[in-house]
Amino acid sequence: MTDRLSQQFAFLTEADKLKSVLRGTTLCDGSRRENSGEHSWHIALYALVMAEHVERPVNVDRVIKMLLLHDLVEIDAGDNPIHGNHDPAEMERVEQAAADRIFGLLPADQATEFRALWDEFEAAESDDAIFAKSIDRVQPVVNNLASGGGSWPEYNVTPEQLETRVGVKVRKGAPALWGHLKTRIDAWFDAR
Amino acid sequence: MTDRLSQQFAFLTEADKLKSVLRGTTLCDGSRRENSGEHSWHIALYALVMAEHVERPVNVDRVIKMLLLHDLVEIDAGDNPIHGNHDPAEMERVEQAAADRIFGLLPADQATEFRALWDEFEAAESDDAIFAKSIDRVQPVVNNLASGGGSWPEYNVTPEQLETRVGVKVRKGAPALWGHLKTRIDAWFDAR
Repeated sequence: MTDRLSQQFAFLTEADKLKSVLRGTTLCDGSRRENSGEHSWHIALYALVMAEHVERPVNVDRVIKMLLLHDLVEIDAGDNPIHGNHDPAEMERVEQAAADRIFGLLPADQATEFRALWDEFEAAESDDAIFAKSIDRVQPVVNNLASGGGSWPEYNVTPEQLETRVGVKVRKGAPALWGHLKTRIDAWFDAR
Repeated sequence: MTDRLSQQFAFLTEADKLKSVLRGTTLCDGSRRENSGEHSWHIALYALVMAEHVERPVNVDRVIKMLLLHDLVEIDAGDNPIHGNHDPAEMERVEQAAADRIFGLLPADQATEFRALWDEFEAAESDDAIFAKSIDRVQPVVNNLASGGGSWPEYNVTPEQLETRVGVKVRKGAPALWGHLKTRIDAWFDAR
């Protein structure tokens, strides 16, 4: 029991480091960059609020668990902004090694369970994972709109890029959300 | 539908402000104070990992939802450190008004549902709420131990205070966790 508790506390203490991984996106008020810990909270809340807008039925409790776990690999691998340039094969290799190490801190049964949820999220094939990925893409758009464009100018983002890199994935899991955001995105680019 | 989505996005954008509410506790590495957004993520993860140590059976999915919502009132009311001094009646009045305003941003059905979960957490009577409260008390202790005492010296915390203000509540929902931590807490005070 003590060994098991020690492993669980070690994992949860390691997880604390996610609060020091900075993302490309800022807070809604633009005051600073968001970290991946608070981002994970925010999108879990998004899933809870927005679950009614799914394209296909999901188990929202599983979606929330996926979202709580989905960014932990960034403790080793860092955040890769969606509009940045990086080598996908190298990124996958680093993230797989990170998942081995970080989930491996847990007792074996929990390591297996959490790793399976993370693998499912990454594969983006199940209805739960597709919705989780949609939500993960929606929140930065809202924060960027709230902060007057946020990181879009920095990355020279175009409406077409938003459509292909973000819109396609959001539509797949929650088309109503993209419909709503598209109007606001178009208005933002028109005003520039 | 558009009105409903607008209300939901307004609530989620308001929720972003929780990332700017600072707590008494620091990160595990002591580098800065923790904010209530990232804290909410961390304790939801704690609940997921530690659910097997409950004193009485809980619905961990409900517990996680409670924990995702539990600190939102701090956007208006601020964080009240457990070892600080404040007027409980005034604090409750301010938090109730905050809950009215913040959950009131949502469509009525969701406002009612989320408010009921928050009320249940605050009442700390149901098995789900008792476990959620235990988890909310455990995480700061772990962060303080990791950062070499954290905010304990600042608040002149004694082992007796930790027992009466923290231990009693943790024991109620998850006694095994307090048993594990008590050993580490005693060692920390003995070493001073």
